Amino acid sequence: MSKPYGVAVIGAGYWGPNLARNFRGSSAWDLVAVCDTDAVRAQRVVGPRSTVEVETDVHRLLARSDIDAVAIATPAATHAPIALAALAAGKHVVVEKPLAPTSVDASKMVRAARDAELILMIDHTYCYTPAVTYIRDVIASGLLGRLLYVESTRINLGLIQPDVDVLWDLAPHDLSILDFILPGGLTPTRVSATGSDPLGAGRACVGHLTLSLPGGGDAHINVNWLSPTKIRQMVIGGSHRTLVWDDLDPLRRVSVHDRGVDLGSPDADERHASAVSYRLGDITVPALSEKEALGSMVEEFAAAIRGDRPSRTDGIAGLRVLSVLEAADHSMAANGSPIRPRFVDTTTGDLE
Amino acid sequence: MSKPYGVAVIGAGYWGPNLARNFRGSSAWDLVAVCDTDAVRAQRVVGPRSTVEVETDVHRLLARSDIDAVAIATPAATHAPIALAALAAGKHVVVEKPLAPTSVDASKMVRAARDAELILMIDHTYCYTPAVTYIRDVIASGLLGRLLYVESTRINLGLIQPDVDVLWDLAPHDLSILDFILPGGLTPTRVSATGSDPLGAGRACVGHLTLSLPGGGDAHINVNWLSPTKIRQMVIGGSHRTLVWDDLDPLRRVSVHDRGVDLGSPDADERHASAVSYRLGDITVPALSEKEALGSMVEEFAAAIRGDRPSRTDGIAGLRVLSVLEAADHSMAANGSPIRPRFVDTTTGDLE
Amino acid sequence: MSKPYGVAVIGAGYWGPNLARNFRGSSAWDLVAVCDTDAVRAQRVVGPRSTVEVETDVHRLLARSDIDAVAIATPAATHAPIALAALAAGKHVVVEKPLAPTSVDASKMVRAARDAELILMIDHTYCYTPAVTYIRDVIASGLLGRLLYVESTRINLGLIQPDVDVLWDLAPHDLSILDFILPGGLTPTRVSATGSDPLGAGRACVGHLTLSLPGGGDAHINVNWLSPTKIRQMVIGGSHRTLVWDDLDPLRRVSVHDRGVDLGSPDADERHASAVSYRLGDITVPALSEKEALGSMVEEFAAAIRGDRPSRTDGIAGLRVLSVLEAADHSMAANGSPIRPRFVDTTTGDLE
Amino acid sequence: MSKPYGVAVIGAGYWGPNLARNFRGSSAWDLVAVCDTDAVRAQRVVGPRSTVEVETDVHRLLARSDIDAVAIATPAATHAPIALAALAAGKHVVVEKPLAPTSVDASKMVRAARDAELILMIDHTYCYTPAVTYIRDVIASGLLGRLLYVESTRINLGLIQPDVDVLWDLAPHDLSILDFILPGGLTPTRVSATGSDPLGAGRACVGHLTLSLPGGGDAHINVNWLSPTKIRQMVIGGSHRTLVWDDLDPLRRVSVHDRGVDLGSPDADERHASAVSYRLGDITVPALSEKEALGSMVEEFAAAIRGDRPSRTDGIAGLRVLSVLEAADHSMAANGSPIRPRFVDTTTGDLE
Repeated sequence: MSKPYGVAVIGAGYWGPNLARNFRGSSAWDLVAVCDTDAVRAQRVVGPRSTVEVETDVHRLLARSDIDAVAIATPAATHAPIALAALAAGKHVVVEKPLAPTSVDASKMVRAARDAELILMIDHTYCYTPAVTYIRDVIASGLLGRLLYVESTRINLGLIQPDVDVLWDLAPHDLSILDFILPGGLTPTRVSATGSDPLGAGRACVGHLTLSLPGGGDAHINVNWLSPTKIRQMVIGGSHRTLVWDDLDPLRRVSVHDRGVDLGSPDADERHASAVSYRLGDITVPALSEKEALGSMVEEFAAAIRGDRPSRTDGIAGLRVLSVLEAADHSMAANGSPIRPRFVDTTTGDLE
Repeated sequence: MSKPYGVAVIGAGYWGPNLARNFRGSSAWDLVAVCDTDAVRAQRVVGPRSTVEVETDVHRLLARSDIDAVAIATPAATHAPIALAALAAGKHVVVEKPLAPTSVDASKMVRAARDAELILMIDHTYCYTPAVTYIRDVIASGLLGRLLYVESTRINLGLIQPDVDVLWDLAPHDLSILDFILPGGLTPTRVSATGSDPLGAGRACVGHLTLSLPGGGDAHINVNWLSPTKIRQMVIGGSHRTLVWDDLDPLRRVSVHDRGVDLGSPDADERHASAVSYRLGDITVPALSEKEALGSMVEEFAAAIRGDRPSRTDGIAGLRVLSVLEAADHSMAANGSPIRPRFVDTTTGDLE
Repeated sequence: MSKPYGVAVIGAGYWGPNLARNFRGSSAWDLVAVCDTDAVRAQRVVGPRSTVEVETDVHRLLARSDIDAVAIATPAATHAPIALAALAAGKHVVVEKPLAPTSVDASKMVRAARDAELILMIDHTYCYTPAVTYIRDVIASGLLGRLLYVESTRINLGLIQPDVDVLWDLAPHDLSILDFILPGGLTPTRVSATGSDPLGAGRACVGHLTLSLPGGGDAHINVNWLSPTKIRQMVIGGSHRTLVWDDLDPLRRVSVHDRGVDLGSPDADERHASAVSYRLGDITVPALSEKEALGSMVEEFAAAIRGDRPSRTDGIAGLRVLSVLEAADHSMAANGSPIRPRFVDTTTGDLE
Repeated sequence: MSKPYGVAVIGAGYWGPNLARNFRGSSAWDLVAVCDTDAVRAQRVVGPRSTVEVETDVHRLLARSDIDAVAIATPAATHAPIALAALAAGKHVVVEKPLAPTSVDASKMVRAARDAELILMIDHTYCYTPAVTYIRDVIASGLLGRLLYVESTRINLGLIQPDVDVLWDLAPHDLSILDFILPGGLTPTRVSATGSDPLGAGRACVGHLTLSLPGGGDAHINVNWLSPTKIRQMVIGGSHRTLVWDDLDPLRRVSVHDRGVDLGSPDADERHASAVSYRLGDITVPALSEKEALGSMVEEFAAAIRGDRPSRTDGIAGLRVLSVLEAADHSMAANGSPIRPRFVDTTTGDLE
């Protein structure tokens, strides 16, 4: 076993404690410090009878030589300056989603990491769940066939955010998952979004987002802060089989349905006429492990550093998600008119 | 008990047998005949050891004096001519949905019935379920408060229809329910619809439809013929409470959630800032009867005739649904651009 | 297609109408008459505009030559005399469960049918559901391995019967299913039952019944009239796989779980020590048809007559169920002490 | 805020880490040391960069003056000697269930704590869940009416324990909950238990336990190590309402059903005759907090010490549970014959 990397968590708010807990639990990491401008809050994360240090100044933190990497869990507006400073100081960086407030900022971060030959990773936590890993593999294996549609629902009573609407708050989860599981990543040519603010909260609290899929179908995402019931479900319809992921059902989190519609004839004209048939086959619920996703994420961060290779949720993934979110913003302002997202050069991180 | 009305069912295909069974089971009706151009199919509906007559000619049927009313369950394209002939012959008419293939036809039917002082009813079956009746009452009572959003999902492996897309096949259910439960009926000023045909079936198999609600929110309808799982669910979010109707869960078909978001301040600027709070109150599952909807529908048909009053699902309701469907068609052709439906004069049945 | 058999339904109470409807819907049968001492009730089953006859006298009915078979749905106390009279008149007989009030009566019926070379069938309706048919086949195929335990739960708010307790009312369903799916039929060597009457209704309203299975495990049945939730579930644990049948979940009525405990060592002493491991494999939900069980039952009745062979739920099955119920009665009176049921000679219908 | 109590966790196996985590997270406690004969295992619980001490000798630990209390999570066989030594050293004690291997040992522990005027608490964790707290309150309020029956199901694929059968492994949860929620605690006059070992594991892997309730009904407990599905459900039937607790359904963990059977007449004879009616009223799902039970348990331990009062799950509760388990053992050995548990003097902890 090699020596653990020294790491600091920057930001002791909502997500920072979860990051700290997982770095602490991993033998690949040595949590050296927790950094927050509010020392009391940082100390609360460190807890009693601990020699993990509390740090209140980011620059002092970044100057330390016992820290190899930082995890940034501060408000989104500060992600870019902190990450750029950390990269400049030679630290590897993992950032809580979203990568940055704008794709332009994010593109800068990706290029800075590339130039410095350091890891820039985005904490798309869902991509480290056993369910999403399984889904990516099953799509790649061809078992589902060609993808026909995706329906993703992420609704719950949510804290109305002071700075972002429901789309920016919740849809990044769905988009990062799509980026991870779609064979070519998230590259829609068309995005339509609508949102409503029936409470007069000043920002959309209910949203619908439609993305074109490469093969001709659509992916649809429904996000809602006002729902008394909590649903986290994604349905991935394929020409051979359909996968249902119900994240709140631990007994049947993922099920693969061998059911579908078969068009009888390859001849297009015939097809329209009539002849369809149904496969009403079995449903399979695969056994999945119950490993905590965030634990796998911090392991992947260490493995990417050690292997000098991009992580499974590289900065570029965060950039692609931002490009789609910005297109959704424009579409919502234009009452749902379709918008083409800015193209992201996957090699360089440049924006079209 | 007054003498039962004589009734004939026209059309012995998919829905006709259900209508026949319910007329037979009602003491308000005397099923005199089943009419279909295919005598064998009609005889199959009549069954053995029965004196219900088989008729193969609509005009001969309409000339009979022992028939007071007809139920039309023929293909949609034939609804208008048959209904107009029946009204001309002095018969009351109930029509399987949709009322007609176009709103222009439907408007003619509504005016013809009005002129002839006969009942023209649309068989919006769902409106006669105990659940939908309860929902209408609970909205009218104010228990939910102001309506913030509606989400309706109706997905299943469906027979790809030779003549209509998934929107025309399934969304009429949702629209007829909205027309029934919304205090002012279905009168959206804006309709957006998108659809996709990933199988190359020649018509949309997956569709999303968004309607503006009077109070500022949206109603959203998702229909899908390609889903291996069957969902029939409607969520009605209100400012006080939210109602969830899960039609496939007999144990908890309707639940009312006393949960929601409260904006702290009536002052709009303040509101945006932050202060929101959550009610995490109880859920109530009301006891509902398990009466068959179609049985209630045929009773209502008789009661409307007897009382000389419009039925609870009058022809005008069917006309309003058609007006929205046609707007959805136009929106889908324009890639989801918002369309304003034609206005329906609720008194005269005239179209704007 | 051969000529349909003439049949009469005797008893127009709760179950008779269901039988009548299914005989009417089958081309193998001609429903000639409905017989009940209450002519109005019988006429209600026949319905309007029908030439099916109403009969109020069983003996006059049995004297008719246009009737080949009768279905008996009268109170249990009358099953034996009516069935014996029908057999004496040369009619084939199907009887609603229970076959008779006592195993002695039932044994007489079985022997009478055997002597007369007529079909005596018991309407164990559940055995004709696609789910139970599947379960029998999957057990027979060996897929589940050796049976380790069965847990059956049948609870609901139930009508407290004037003449029978909850065990006699509900457990016959579970017992008839066990008789059908267990490779050797229902032949426990030990039955324990307890019941309680916490309402003071005069008979047990909550009951638990344990039967020894041939391989060393137990089958346990829980019946309850006082439960506000309705559960109809059977779990069949096997050494290889476990099957769960949830009759109220149409989407996942049957699921086969490839999960279980493996004892590491064949050596008994070692085994106890420790070495167990777990298989956490997939779950499979087989596709089942949605055919109505009672329709399959009436088809089987006709097929048994035509093929001159015992039906899949022969009189002897009803007799075995009665033998277990009587043992359960004795056990309940002795506060759960184990009782050995009377042995049923499967060939002759004789009781030990 | 008063000074936190010093505490040590003894036993770093399965449950110890959970206790350590919750003591660490509580401001009422200062986790001073983790004690285990295996220092590596103890160090793993302490974790890196911590000044919590590792101790390998219980007696050295108990001699420390900076420790006010200990939590014992060692194998059951060692509970009594360690607890007695801790009490002798003037430490307050909380013990993982079961309190001791025998009721005789447990009685000694209760008396020792009483004599030393120290807290002896049993970690009946479930009693600190919001659900069980709610259930106790709702029963005490009379909302359910008189208790008619309890059905508890606790089944899952379970580790076959080397030393105890499924009854001793799982039923203590159900029994401790019953002890907590029943107005007079757990005092059945009759216990019947059956168990089966169909795998040949050397001990019962499937068990059924029936206890008499004070009001005439029964409580029934089903435990099973061989079930591929996980169920943790308790149904508490009352004369007014019935409560269903489904611990694995976070959305509807507890529901109160206003449904039941009403016997029409107070006259016993009449009652049997017929007249019953049904209430099919609403279901209510109360809002419950999502607080971690073990956190509440450690707070209660501190509060009991501070207030010099018995904790909500006092040693005597653990003793009552043992008395019932021992009766169940005897019943199982006698094939389910009913056994009367030894009486526990609630004031003194003496056994009858």
